[in-house]
Amino acid sequence: MKAAILTIGDEILYGQTVNTNAAWMGIQLAQIGVRVYETLVVSDEEAHILKGLNHVKEVADLILITGGLGPTKDDVTKTALCKFFNVGLKPNPVILKVLEDFFLKRGLPMLENNIQQANLPENCLALRNAKGTAWGMWFVDWGKVFVSMPGVPYEMKQIMTDEVIPKIKETFSLPVIIHKHILTAAIPESFLSEKLEPFEAELPADIKLAYLPSAGKVKLRLTGAGDDRAILEQRISEQAEKIKVLAGKYIYGYDNDEFEAAVGKILQKQGKTMSTAESCTGGYIAHLITSVSGSSAYFKGSVVPYANEVKRNILGVREATLNEHGAVSEQAVIEMLRGVTVELNTDFGIAVSGIAGPGGGTPEKSVGTVWVAVGSAENFKTKMYNFPGSREQNIEWTAVVALEMLRKYLIDSLI
Amino acid sequence: MKAAILTIGDEILYGQTVNTNAAWMGIQLAQIGVRVYETLVVSDEEAHILKGLNHVKEVADLILITGGLGPTKDDVTKTALCKFFNVGLKPNPVILKVLEDFFLKRGLPMLENNIQQANLPENCLALRNAKGTAWGMWFVDWGKVFVSMPGVPYEMKQIMTDEVIPKIKETFSLPVIIHKHILTAAIPESFLSEKLEPFEAELPADIKLAYLPSAGKVKLRLTGAGDDRAILEQRISEQAEKIKVLAGKYIYGYDNDEFEAAVGKILQKQGKTMSTAESCTGGYIAHLITSVSGSSAYFKGSVVPYANEVKRNILGVREATLNEHGAVSEQAVIEMLRGVTVELNTDFGIAVSGIAGPGGGTPEKSVGTVWVAVGSAENFKTKMYNFPGSREQNIEWTAVVALEMLRKYLIDSLI
Repeated sequence: MKAAILTIGDEILYGQTVNTNAAWMGIQLAQIGVRVYETLVVSDEEAHILKGLNHVKEVADLILITGGLGPTKDDVTKTALCKFFNVGLKPNPVILKVLEDFFLKRGLPMLENNIQQANLPENCLALRNAKGTAWGMWFVDWGKVFVSMPGVPYEMKQIMTDEVIPKIKETFSLPVIIHKHILTAAIPESFLSEKLEPFEAELPADIKLAYLPSAGKVKLRLTGAGDDRAILEQRISEQAEKIKVLAGKYIYGYDNDEFEAAVGKILQKQGKTMSTAESCTGGYIAHLITSVSGSSAYFKGSVVPYANEVKRNILGVREATLNEHGAVSEQAVIEMLRGVTVELNTDFGIAVSGIAGPGGGTPEKSVGTVWVAVGSAENFKTKMYNFPGSREQNIEWTAVVALEMLRKYLIDSLI
Repeated sequence: MKAAILTIGDEILYGQTVNTNAAWMGIQLAQIGVRVYETLVVSDEEAHILKGLNHVKEVADLILITGGLGPTKDDVTKTALCKFFNVGLKPNPVILKVLEDFFLKRGLPMLENNIQQANLPENCLALRNAKGTAWGMWFVDWGKVFVSMPGVPYEMKQIMTDEVIPKIKETFSLPVIIHKHILTAAIPESFLSEKLEPFEAELPADIKLAYLPSAGKVKLRLTGAGDDRAILEQRISEQAEKIKVLAGKYIYGYDNDEFEAAVGKILQKQGKTMSTAESCTGGYIAHLITSVSGSSAYFKGSVVPYANEVKRNILGVREATLNEHGAVSEQAVIEMLRGVTVELNTDFGIAVSGIAGPGGGTPEKSVGTVWVAVGSAENFKTKMYNFPGSREQNIEWTAVVALEMLRKYLIDSLI
């Protein structure tokens, strides 16, 4: 079974938007045993969309289409699909009701172009968009399946996950493919690969290992294909166990475990609380922690003392410390940690101070120098890092290593 | 004149690599007035590459091919090109010499597959690769130009910049293409499009308007093509002015202006400072502000009072306020704003409190209810919002509307 992706949008062709949607869909499809055979990007013109549809129809059994479903004039995918299938538009009462409720709730008038979003080609099955007004569409014709989705990434991802993937699994007979993700943090890819060398040398040929790095983290993916799910699961678990023996101390979770939630899980289980004092990360660690629903159970808050004046006045960092050691120093993060855990009345905390760059470096303290302290006011660990990246990367890496330091500290001291 | 991009590589189809090459080439080509009409991604199989070549040959005058030129077995682009043009391979003496020098200099043996890299289809012109061993190739046939380049981004970019772009300019007579981006925030796409309806009705047919939405923001893109740059720039500026008349209060900048930097630019010019008190956004607004290099000139810091205890103890929010109105209330954000601007000694501030979801909603205050206050301790503006999204979206939207409220406030009160 072959799939093709048809991406619609001038902004992709002009390079103003990178086609991350196609990459994301490729990964999702591979996980259920569907191979993407071709990706075609066409412009927002109706004639071009029709040409594109005719092309992909010839090369694949499943065609996933994104883009051109918004409420504005340059969104013409729906009329192109009507011409392609030779059908008319028909109002969908379910969508109309959802849109009416949506606008009513917000006290906004429903405009003509909003009402038109409820009109769908009459031969399609509507796929619920829980995050926006342009629903997805599922068509079957010429023995092939066509799916049309909006190009806004978070809307497309929700429709793919909740609607399209389950329906693909129902519709097509797919091989069993099993992926296991082993999630590591605070170890660079090359060091991890060095540790896993003996493992890779003995890995059976039909099980594949992939390294998927992102800022501060490396996701290891074991993939196997076969006919019997139970046997395959067993074999892959055995390989995952071998990885744990070699690199266990860097593993913070498996599969869908969220890195941001790892520290919170431990704290919640022990009934403990935490706070952060963030200079160079500017609130990013607090943002990661609070991106987890329910984090208020263990996270009390944060102070971002960007100015030294705030380090002194709110966190009680001593003037002498700032003068003698500077704001980016072990002594400063220790005092920040003490200040934030005492002032916010929490059991544990994270304090970071560093030079994110690109400006602010000195001969003694270069851009990328970061001090981290984690623990309680009396019992803490500190470490200095030197990151070589851009401002954005240095902020991300700092957040990851700081959270990972606290996770290890909590495991050692609480469990 | 139309261009097409043919990307060769399984890793792109599987989603393991995002097609940033196509985006980068699209931008380079747009700058010299070449429109990318289509992008096609095919697998590493020879038969598929030939099918792809035959497809793009029909739709474009200039075809840019990347990938499949390495020394390993899965790199078959060169043999596919020989079949496509019906020619043989021929050793290129210049490349052979460069490769020999390269290996000699490093004291490495030259392997058979290295020697083969000097063999090129006999009808091509070789394009120097200054960063690797796989040179580019320029073909002319059927009145069309075909260019083949390696897929390694920095090698492709060097060959495009030094060899391909100058040769395209020599070969084709190119129009001028100009894009102008008008950047808006805190207005939904459908409302913006309603406001711009009279504008769109009168827009000259050869100037295009596109809506590019992201969380809380919509980027408008005007595109025009012509022969005379000065005249075209003038015409597009006139259209941008008309948009400003209709939707000026939502415009925070143009082209490469960063939303995160808009507030800071005003503050810095006036020598003023700011801080944030963030409950539901958990530090995300501070993170956006500090993602801009140099933000320490106007941003003193933030307090994230996730627990009510922290709202009281650090920001001085009154117990009575929390009991009578709740933490998500106008009175609470007013007191949070006062607290953070006084405690952190800043001229202005942002305070937000809301229910990001998915939990925490009540019949009176549903998930997505957010109160925002911006301004100084004495002179402030407040507003309540109701966002319908996921936790992540509600946090993003809150950050965007809060920053946009402060920007408007500063314009009204400072400028």
